[in-house]
Amino acid sequence: MIHGKSHPKTVDESKDIIQGILNSYAQIGGINHLDGSNLPSRQSVFDVLENLKEILFPGYFESVCLDSHNLPDVTGQKVVDLIDVLSEEIYKSLCWKCTKKERCEQLIDCRSAARDIALGLMKEIPTIRELLREDAAATFSGDPAAQSEHEIILSYPGFLATAVYRIAHFLALQNVPLMPRMMTEVAHAQTGIDIHPGAKIGRRFCVDHGTGVVIGETAEIGDDVKLYQGVTLGALSVADRNILGKRHPTLGNNVTVYAKATILGGDTVIGAHSIVGGNVWLTHSVPEHTKIFLSEDRKQVLRHGEWVI
Amino acid sequence: MIHGKSHPKTVDESKDIIQGILNSYAQIGGINHLDGSNLPSRQSVFDVLENLKEILFPGYFESVCLDSHNLPDVTGQKVVDLIDVLSEEIYKSLCWKCTKKERCEQLIDCRSAARDIALGLMKEIPTIRELLREDAAATFSGDPAAQSEHEIILSYPGFLATAVYRIAHFLALQNVPLMPRMMTEVAHAQTGIDIHPGAKIGRRFCVDHGTGVVIGETAEIGDDVKLYQGVTLGALSVADRNILGKRHPTLGNNVTVYAKATILGGDTVIGAHSIVGGNVWLTHSVPEHTKIFLSEDRKQVLRHGEWVI
Amino acid sequence: MIHGKSHPKTVDESKDIIQGILNSYAQIGGINHLDGSNLPSRQSVFDVLENLKEILFPGYFESVCLDSHNLPDVTGQKVVDLIDVLSEEIYKSLCWKCTKKERCEQLIDCRSAARDIALGLMKEIPTIRELLREDAAATFSGDPAAQSEHEIILSYPGFLATAVYRIAHFLALQNVPLMPRMMTEVAHAQTGIDIHPGAKIGRRFCVDHGTGVVIGETAEIGDDVKLYQGVTLGALSVADRNILGKRHPTLGNNVTVYAKATILGGDTVIGAHSIVGGNVWLTHSVPEHTKIFLSEDRKQVLRHGEWVI
Repeated sequence: MIHGKSHPKTVDESKDIIQGILNSYAQIGGINHLDGSNLPSRQSVFDVLENLKEILFPGYFESVCLDSHNLPDVTGQKVVDLIDVLSEEIYKSLCWKCTKKERCEQLIDCRSAARDIALGLMKEIPTIRELLREDAAATFSGDPAAQSEHEIILSYPGFLATAVYRIAHFLALQNVPLMPRMMTEVAHAQTGIDIHPGAKIGRRFCVDHGTGVVIGETAEIGDDVKLYQGVTLGALSVADRNILGKRHPTLGNNVTVYAKATILGGDTVIGAHSIVGGNVWLTHSVPEHTKIFLSEDRKQVLRHGEWVI
Repeated sequence: MIHGKSHPKTVDESKDIIQGILNSYAQIGGINHLDGSNLPSRQSVFDVLENLKEILFPGYFESVCLDSHNLPDVTGQKVVDLIDVLSEEIYKSLCWKCTKKERCEQLIDCRSAARDIALGLMKEIPTIRELLREDAAATFSGDPAAQSEHEIILSYPGFLATAVYRIAHFLALQNVPLMPRMMTEVAHAQTGIDIHPGAKIGRRFCVDHGTGVVIGETAEIGDDVKLYQGVTLGALSVADRNILGKRHPTLGNNVTVYAKATILGGDTVIGAHSIVGGNVWLTHSVPEHTKIFLSEDRKQVLRHGEWVI
Repeated sequence: MIHGKSHPKTVDESKDIIQGILNSYAQIGGINHLDGSNLPSRQSVFDVLENLKEILFPGYFESVCLDSHNLPDVTGQKVVDLIDVLSEEIYKSLCWKCTKKERCEQLIDCRSAARDIALGLMKEIPTIRELLREDAAATFSGDPAAQSEHEIILSYPGFLATAVYRIAHFLALQNVPLMPRMMTEVAHAQTGIDIHPGAKIGRRFCVDHGTGVVIGETAEIGDDVKLYQGVTLGALSVADRNILGKRHPTLGNNVTVYAKATILGGDTVIGAHSIVGGNVWLTHSVPEHTKIFLSEDRKQVLRHGEWVI
């Protein structure tokens, strides 16, 4: 049998199988999308992010070398191309929401709205770059293992996840459905860092190492905050979807949270200049200038087979 | 030097290097596979999963739009193609096991057995779809941040890992070696969620966020269970390979385990309707309707430089 | 609008946007790389690692079947090609360092130095293979769920991260900048395991499951050490970049660290034959033959709504 070429017997036997699958499509709803419309695809969202990275950080990710001579032309072409691609994916996201509501409630034309949002994002690029420059500098100054900011931009997952968040957050503020979350989930797959696009995050933000970090939709994070790998800023219990309240914690300025601490609850506020130690489980607020750690003596120790404590 | 074109001096100097590497191949066993047979490749396992996703969730991942007119033809072609590819990869897995035993102990023809298993998986698709529809609904109802089930199918890592697990588990039950684990490791790389294909998992399963979740080979999980990111269902200590007992915990129906809890041991049973809090380390059973959390007061607190507790 | 073809109006409107972005490039430093020189790209580093995997583990990752007849020719061609590609990427890394210092302080020619290092790595392949054979055997003997070492080489993330670390560590010892860290960050993205290339790791090393593991730059790990998912070997607090001391812990021989334990500090030494339990937070040394766990009774338990402890 040649790989990829259909075996005649397979074609025959598979008729019942195909009919069974088609029946399943007809009977089982909720996991089909068969109305002939398009959804933004993970691949296209991925491609948009790759293009955005080239525009945000010129000279780091392109295959061509950039200098002052070719920069204007290369940049211009990229921006023009990206506006088209972005408009198309935002359009699909907006259409999906209209379709969901079964009739288009919005008087504005989705195509034109999508293009305005795409142009808006591109206009925001200088502002986002300013924020990311500060994020890169904060990451560099907080990590003695970093040799340069180049290394951070080329390879640090925490910085990549932050860059994608800042873009997705802008789109979320424009009420684009689907696509912002798909963007942060692409970053989550690449980095292990899951930042909901709805979260509010201040300046000079740093996620170190980052695998396992989860930042919920209604979390609010001040300036100069540093999170290590595995930190959760989550909901205390699953709120009713219809209660649209704050479910995730607030972190003041200059807060540091060490590896794998879990901070839960919409009313939980970590005061400014506080430090939360690793592996801590925290469901209440702490005032400013607090350091909270797991007690070192709350352990059982067995040495050479005998209990020590 | 032109990139990719061999430098003459390199060819010359590299002769000794090549001979050294070939000597290493001759001398160091265990990490070579040089008998001329084929193993399933990570790439082909990845491709199989991508094709299965298109069949499981029509309209979500294809580049063409699907509607009632083109659905039968598109689906039929996909199914026929996939049966061939699946058969080939399962065949390689079965051959590998035969080769390992140095002579083929099985009287049945591996090619024919592989094709039967591939057809069996395709026949199972409607049943797997039914399970996944419930998983998607459970994920949606448990996550106020989700805007729709579309979003879950398009982008939620917990749902993707569950879908791959349900396929791999079917193949593991047919005693296919290698490939089921390779499938769940592809999902692990994409999602950070490591579910062994041998685990038994009930209906309406939900993994939220998910990075760092590990579910061991002999874990048993009831219906309506929800796990958050970083949860381990692991072995208490490394059992002897020859003791083929249950090494991983059992979770009853309606159990919720919060972020980064570690539950270990084959005799550990978490009773139905129980909740295990975040960052808990648990190596014994708990009865039904139990809530277990790390004590809030088991911490050291320093405020403005002075010890508070 | 045709996807990918520029809308005339977009071209027009985007002029101001492009100028804004170009102004941002001129004004915001630190996240641009516009001097016309090349940096090693993530893609090229990824490709180098894929090629190295084929040479390290012949027969596992190639599309062609390998046997004693074609092995010398296939290997020879791969090695010669890889030396060129490696030399080029190492050259870019060395140049970057020179550029950073604004004038080339090194009298040696970067091209020639890069080629020597590439040849050195290829000469080291037999030694690295010997280490990796031991790592694979240790992983196999420690994991009852593994069916064979084939499965480990084909699919275990802990083994992949270790293989990439051993290569990157060799390059770090040759003082290659950028590329070693980019290599381990590629592995981090694929596996969730973040091992700094500067760490020192002994023989027969095993990372099981692995998502969330972080091993810092100055960590030292003995022989026969096993780490589970989510383990941190980190810094106690952020040291000054100019204090080039040891910031990360030391683990003696035969140490096992269970899931999500956090061990911090450059002075922290875990004595040989010790076991650190899951979710433990540890910032001081423990002597040899110690077992340290979170106390089982340091929890709050609520059963059927009433406090039990």
